[in-house]
Amino acid sequence: MFIKRTDLALEARELWQESAERTSRLSGVKATKTKLEGYPLTRVDILNEKGEAALGKPQGSYLTIDLTTFWQRKADFFERAVRAVGSQLKALLPAQGPALVVGLGNPAMTPDAVGPLAADSVLITRHLISAMPKHFSGFRPVAVFRSGVLGTTGVESAEAVRGLVAEVQPALVIAVDALASRRCERVCTTVQLSDTGIVPGSGVGNHRSALNQETLGVPVYAVGIPTVVDAATLAADLLEESGLTEVNPERLRQGQQTLMVTPRDIDQQVRDLSKVVGYGINWALQDLEIEEINALLS
Amino acid sequence: MFIKRTDLALEARELWQESAERTSRLSGVKATKTKLEGYPLTRVDILNEKGEAALGKPQGSYLTIDLTTFWQRKADFFERAVRAVGSQLKALLPAQGPALVVGLGNPAMTPDAVGPLAADSVLITRHLISAMPKHFSGFRPVAVFRSGVLGTTGVESAEAVRGLVAEVQPALVIAVDALASRRCERVCTTVQLSDTGIVPGSGVGNHRSALNQETLGVPVYAVGIPTVVDAATLAADLLEESGLTEVNPERLRQGQQTLMVTPRDIDQQVRDLSKVVGYGINWALQDLEIEEINALLS
Amino acid sequence: MFIKRTDLALEARELWQESAERTSRLSGVKATKTKLEGYPLTRVDILNEKGEAALGKPQGSYLTIDLTTFWQRKADFFERAVRAVGSQLKALLPAQGPALVVGLGNPAMTPDAVGPLAADSVLITRHLISAMPKHFSGFRPVAVFRSGVLGTTGVESAEAVRGLVAEVQPALVIAVDALASRRCERVCTTVQLSDTGIVPGSGVGNHRSALNQETLGVPVYAVGIPTVVDAATLAADLLEESGLTEVNPERLRQGQQTLMVTPRDIDQQVRDLSKVVGYGINWALQDLEIEEINALLS
Amino acid sequence: MFIKRTDLALEARELWQESAERTSRLSGVKATKTKLEGYPLTRVDILNEKGEAALGKPQGSYLTIDLTTFWQRKADFFERAVRAVGSQLKALLPAQGPALVVGLGNPAMTPDAVGPLAADSVLITRHLISAMPKHFSGFRPVAVFRSGVLGTTGVESAEAVRGLVAEVQPALVIAVDALASRRCERVCTTVQLSDTGIVPGSGVGNHRSALNQETLGVPVYAVGIPTVVDAATLAADLLEESGLTEVNPERLRQGQQTLMVTPRDIDQQVRDLSKVVGYGINWALQDLEIEEINALLS
Repeated sequence: MFIKRTDLALEARELWQESAERTSRLSGVKATKTKLEGYPLTRVDILNEKGEAALGKPQGSYLTIDLTTFWQRKADFFERAVRAVGSQLKALLPAQGPALVVGLGNPAMTPDAVGPLAADSVLITRHLISAMPKHFSGFRPVAVFRSGVLGTTGVESAEAVRGLVAEVQPALVIAVDALASRRCERVCTTVQLSDTGIVPGSGVGNHRSALNQETLGVPVYAVGIPTVVDAATLAADLLEESGLTEVNPERLRQGQQTLMVTPRDIDQQVRDLSKVVGYGINWALQDLEIEEINALLS
Repeated sequence: MFIKRTDLALEARELWQESAERTSRLSGVKATKTKLEGYPLTRVDILNEKGEAALGKPQGSYLTIDLTTFWQRKADFFERAVRAVGSQLKALLPAQGPALVVGLGNPAMTPDAVGPLAADSVLITRHLISAMPKHFSGFRPVAVFRSGVLGTTGVESAEAVRGLVAEVQPALVIAVDALASRRCERVCTTVQLSDTGIVPGSGVGNHRSALNQETLGVPVYAVGIPTVVDAATLAADLLEESGLTEVNPERLRQGQQTLMVTPRDIDQQVRDLSKVVGYGINWALQDLEIEEINALLS
Repeated sequence: MFIKRTDLALEARELWQESAERTSRLSGVKATKTKLEGYPLTRVDILNEKGEAALGKPQGSYLTIDLTTFWQRKADFFERAVRAVGSQLKALLPAQGPALVVGLGNPAMTPDAVGPLAADSVLITRHLISAMPKHFSGFRPVAVFRSGVLGTTGVESAEAVRGLVAEVQPALVIAVDALASRRCERVCTTVQLSDTGIVPGSGVGNHRSALNQETLGVPVYAVGIPTVVDAATLAADLLEESGLTEVNPERLRQGQQTLMVTPRDIDQQVRDLSKVVGYGINWALQDLEIEEINALLS
Repeated sequence: MFIKRTDLALEARELWQESAERTSRLSGVKATKTKLEGYPLTRVDILNEKGEAALGKPQGSYLTIDLTTFWQRKADFFERAVRAVGSQLKALLPAQGPALVVGLGNPAMTPDAVGPLAADSVLITRHLISAMPKHFSGFRPVAVFRSGVLGTTGVESAEAVRGLVAEVQPALVIAVDALASRRCERVCTTVQLSDTGIVPGSGVGNHRSALNQETLGVPVYAVGIPTVVDAATLAADLLEESGLTEVNPERLRQGQQTLMVTPRDIDQQVRDLSKVVGYGINWALQDLEIEEINALLS
C-alpha cells in the first residue's frame, strides 16, 4: 500500500479521516481549534493505544500553529509568532530545571537546517550561570547541542545526545527538527510542538532511533517545521483529487524517491522561521521580553 | 493554455512532438544523438524561423550532455564529464580572444547558485597576463563576473554585463546559469550548451532581458544546468500520463506557483556539477590538462 | 625611510606632528573635535596643496567617528552610531539623485569584508522604483555593486565600477572599504567618512587605481573602517615609545610583511560595524527611521 | 613576571634555553632533528618531572613538522606533507581499534577553525562499517565530533567529549586544535603532534579542562597548527632583541590583551593546512593511498 508521508499529527488525522468510512469515529484522538496571537492553533491529543494505532504516532499532545499570515508581515508578526510558539511550549514544559536544546539536522542542506539555525537563536546560559552565579541567578540553565547528521559524524544523533545528557544532566530536552508535510501549503507556514519526543531526520527521509523519555531518561519536547513535501505524496494527492484512484502512486517513487517539493525561496523562509523557534524557546524557558532577548543575543 | 516550463531545447522539441499530429514533421529543426566520453549527447539545431516558432527558442545549436551516470562515480567520471563539456564548448567558441565568464544567479539560493559556483572554478588570468605578460603568455585572458540578482543589486544582470563588456572588451562572453527542466530525471544530470545567448534567471522563474550578440555586441555562449522542475509542470505531466487530459493544470499554479521540485541532496549535486562546468570552461579556453587546472586552482 | 601605514587622515596628521619640529605649524590643514550622539567626532579638512603634501592625502573633508564605547553596548548604542554616521554622511552628499553603493573588498577574508557586508544592509530600491514608480515614489534610487577583488575577477574594481556607472548613471557613488590604522585601539572602533574618493584595497596592502570624481565622472564618497594594523608599523611605534630610535624598523618588514594585527573576535566586530555603516548609508540616503529600515530589510 | 605565550614544546624549550644560564643543562628533555619527505622534523621528548617543570608541559613526545616550504608549492608538496604528518601520527597511535576524531574550536572564527575544518576532511566510517560490515571490513571505525566552543554550546568541550566517549567507546581520541606560537614565522607553517592530550582553546586564549587519558579514560593524541602570535609576546621579543630588557612588556597586555598577529591570507592558509591534517589522520588510520582518500571524500 502506498504510504503518504507526513510528520504532522494534524495531517495523520486528516489521512485517517479520508481513508475511513464516513460512519466510523476516530476514538482515542481529540482535536480542538482556536486562535492565538492571530494565528490559528490546532491541538491533537492522542489519548490511548487506539489513537496511537490510528495515527501512527505515540500518545501525547501535538500543537500546530499556522503561521501562513506571518509572510504578510503585518504588525508585530514576528513578536506574535514568538509569543504563540513560546506560550504553548511553556505550557508543555516543566516549570523549572536545566534544559538541553538539541538542533537536529544538517546545517549544509537548507531544508534540513531548521534545527541548527534555531539553535543559533537560543540564549545559552549554562556556562554563564556556572561562572557568575550571582549575576545570572535569574536565568534557567540552557545548553545547546547541534547533532549534525550520521554522514558527517558517524554517530547517531540519539547516541550523541544520550552521552551528553549523562554529562549535563538536564531536567528536559527540547529537540528541534525539520519535518515533512503532506501539503505544500503547510511547508514553511507551520510549527508543530509536542511532548512525545521525536525521531530525528524523518523530515528528509532518514529514520533514526528516537529521542524520547524512554531512550534519554528525561522528558523530550519536540519543535518541528515542515520544509518539504515528498513528491510522490503530492502526486498521489493530485491523482486522488482528480478521481484517478486506480493508479498506484507507489510507481511514482521509482527512481525519483528522493525528490522533494520546496518553496523557491526556502533559504530565507527557513532562516526566518528558525529564528521564531529559537526565540520561542527563549520565551518559554526564560522570563524575558522579546526586546531583552534581542539585546542578549546581539 | 497551460504552458509547461522548460529551458532545454531537447524538451521543447519533445513537447512539440507530443502536441503535434503524428503525421506532421518538425521542419527547421535537426536533432542528432551520439555518445561522448561515455555520456549521451543530443544536438538540436534550430535552423530557421519555422524552427524558432515551433520550439520558442532562437536559431542556433543546443547541445545536451546527459551526465546521469556521473553519479555512479565510475572510473574517471569527473575527468570524462569535464572533457565532454569542454570539447563541445570549445567547438562552439572562436579559437582566440579574451573571454568574460558570467556567473548568473543567486549564490545564497542553492538551486540558483550554478553560475556563481561554476565561476569559482574558472581560471582567472586577465590580470596575471597584464601584470606578467611573459610568464603567462601561453594563457588566454579570462575575467569573471558574478552578477548577483536584481533583489541584491538593483541592476539587471544584462545592464551590468553590458557595462563590463564596454570596459573589458572581451571577444566573447560565456554565461552560466541554472535552468528549469520539465522532467525530474534531467535535474542535476544534464548540461546544456548553446551559441545563442541566454535569458538570465529563467531557471527559477525570473525572466530578465537577454544576454546575446544583439544586446552585448559580442557572441554569447550559454552553459546551463537544470536544477528544478516547476511543480505545476510536473503535475500536468502526471495527469496526462494518466490520461486525465480534461483537467486544467493551470489550476495547479494557483497559490503555489513558486513551488519547485528538487533532489534531496541538491546542495552537493549543484556543487559537483558546477565544478564540472567551471573545469569544462577552462578546458575549452586554455590549453591545459585537468591535473594542470587542479594545480593552478589550488 | 620607514613608512608607517595608515589610511586615516586623523593619524596622518598625528604622524606629521610627531615628525615635525615643535615650532612648525601644519598649514593647509584644519582639525576640529566635537561629540555626536555621545561619540567623539574629529574633522580634518585638507585645504590646499600644502596640506595634501603634509598628509599624503587629497584635498577634502575627513570625518572620524570614534565608536569605542559602542562595544560597551549601553542604551541605544546601535541607533546612536547609525545616526552619527548617517547624519555626517548626509551632510557630505548632494541632496538628490540616484546613488550607487560600492562594497569593495573580499567577502571571504574577514578583515577585508567590510564593503560586501555593509552592502548587505543597504536598502536597494532602484529596481523597485523602476517597476512600481508610484508605490516607491518617496525613495531615492539606490543600486549596489560588490566588486570582489582582482584575484577573483581579473578586473580592477575601478574598471568594473566605471562600466557600471556608465550604464546606471548615478549622481554619486558611495564606496565602502576596510582600512588600515596605525593604532590597535582604532581597529574596529572607528569610522572614517570623506568626500575625496578612495583607493580600493589599501586596508590590506593592495593599492589599486582610485575611485574618485576624476576617474568616474561623478563625486565619490568613501566610508571606511580600520580592521588591521600593519605589524611593522606597530613594532616601530613600540620601539619609538621605548626611546629606541636608532633601530631601523624597516627590518621588521623582511619576511613578515604580510603580517597584520587584529582583534581576536574580528568576525563579530566586522559584522556589527558593517551593519552600522549600511544602516548609516540608508539613514543618509532615505528619509526613514531606523525601525523602518529594519522592517524593510527583514 | 611576563609570560611569553606558546603552545609548541619546541618553543617552550627555546624559551627555557634563553632564560637559563649558559652553563646549566636541560635535564629530562631530549630533542632531535631530522628531515621527513623534505620537511624538517623536530622531536622533543619530555622524559620526567624535571622536564615537565622546565617546559611547563606533560611528559610525552612532541613532534613538530616544519611545512614552511609547503607554500612554495613545489612537486608533490601536498602529498609529501600528508605523508609526513600521517606517518608520524601513525607511529604514535595504537595499531588497532576504533577512533574518535575531535575537531576543537570555533568554525566561525578563522584562526580557531583548524579543528572543524580538519574534521571535514576525515573519512567517517563508523556508521558504514556498522551498516555494511562486509563491504567496509577493511576500514577502521572512525567517528567525528565537532565540539564548538563554550559560548555557542554552554558545555565544556571536555564534558561533551567525555559523554560521547562513554557512548561510542573508541580505543583512542585524536584531538585537532589551533595553537598559539611565539614566532610569526611558525604561524601556518608548523604542525605539532603529541601523545599527551590537549587543553582545548589555548591557541586563542581560552583555557579549558584537558582532554587526556586521565579525563577520558582512553589515550588522547593531539594535532595542532599555530595560527596566531600573541601581540604582547611578539612585542616582548622585539624589545629583547633590541636589548631593551628593562621595559616590562606586561604593560603591553593592558587594554589590548586580545590582539593577535596573523598572516594576511589566513583564511586560505588555515583551509589548506587543515586539509593536510585531515588527510594525515586518514593516512594514519586507514590503509589507503592519497588518491583513494580523494575518491572516497568526493
